[in-house]
Amino acid sequence: MNNSTIISKEELLIHWQGHRALTRRVIEKFPEKELFTFAIGNMRSFADMVKELLSIAVPGLDGIVNGKTDAYNHDLKLDTKEALLNAWDESTPKITALYNQIPVERFHEDHNLFGEYNFPIYQNLLYFVDNEVHHRAQGYTYLRALAIEPPFFWERTL
Amino acid sequence: MNNSTIISKEELLIHWQGHRALTRRVIEKFPEKELFTFAIGNMRSFADMVKELLSIAVPGLDGIVNGKTDAYNHDLKLDTKEALLNAWDESTPKITALYNQIPVERFHEDHNLFGEYNFPIYQNLLYFVDNEVHHRAQGYTYLRALAIEPPFFWERTL
Repeated sequence: MNNSTIISKEELLIHWQGHRALTRRVIEKFPEKELFTFAIGNMRSFADMVKELLSIAVPGLDGIVNGKTDAYNHDLKLDTKEALLNAWDESTPKITALYNQIPVERFHEDHNLFGEYNFPIYQNLLYFVDNEVHHRAQGYTYLRALAIEPPFFWERTL
Repeated sequence: MNNSTIISKEELLIHWQGHRALTRRVIEKFPEKELFTFAIGNMRSFADMVKELLSIAVPGLDGIVNGKTDAYNHDLKLDTKEALLNAWDESTPKITALYNQIPVERFHEDHNLFGEYNFPIYQNLLYFVDNEVHHRAQGYTYLRALAIEPPFFWERTL
């Protein structure tokens, strides 16, 4: 780490939670049935992608904070839109609480995320955000294919 | 700006250029015709999305470095896959050169990007990356719809 740092710990959390607020809006736009059943070209349903995001955020941070390297489990028992949104909302304060427990000086330490991805913690966290933007954009495409207008990309307010 | 900074100027550039290397691989995966014609649900072709990315990266950085607030122009005259890839490769060193001209102390200054988006420069730059991940993921979905295996998400080497 050098002294030309440009993004603070607080700013990265705000950035991530802003993206999560947008992802929540994308979940809300899906009709219940299509959320769990619609897909393009052998891809997963958007519900399955959301379960992946849920199984990465809090468990991944818990691993970083508490030095755990357990594998992830994307197969969450969340079978309704309401259950997905509730799980999303329950994750929100947990993410903030866990994130705030990571000392600034640890962000450049390696962590073996889920026992598989051994990278500096700031890269683990950027991966969480990138992976969410990536799958959410697939959700945007599903919505467009269903002729549903997705939320504006820049709507990030909680 | 406070002293709890966790991502350095160099690290954000490496992160962005790594994403750009992956986006280049996605362009390469498209057959020539489908790159310019295939779309889902009234969305644009992936070629049009790539033109948007090209019209944001170097012109956006030029605006930041040289204090310009001209509007963007996504309507680039790039009509073949080869022309798109060449424009992509020409942008790569220009991005690095322009980015390196932004002094660290400016990253928290506001810049009115393209005369429309007045935010701190580090947020302008995170937007460039997020927007690229977002549209590239739409390209992934197009490839899946075309029964073409996209590149691995974590392949970021130049």
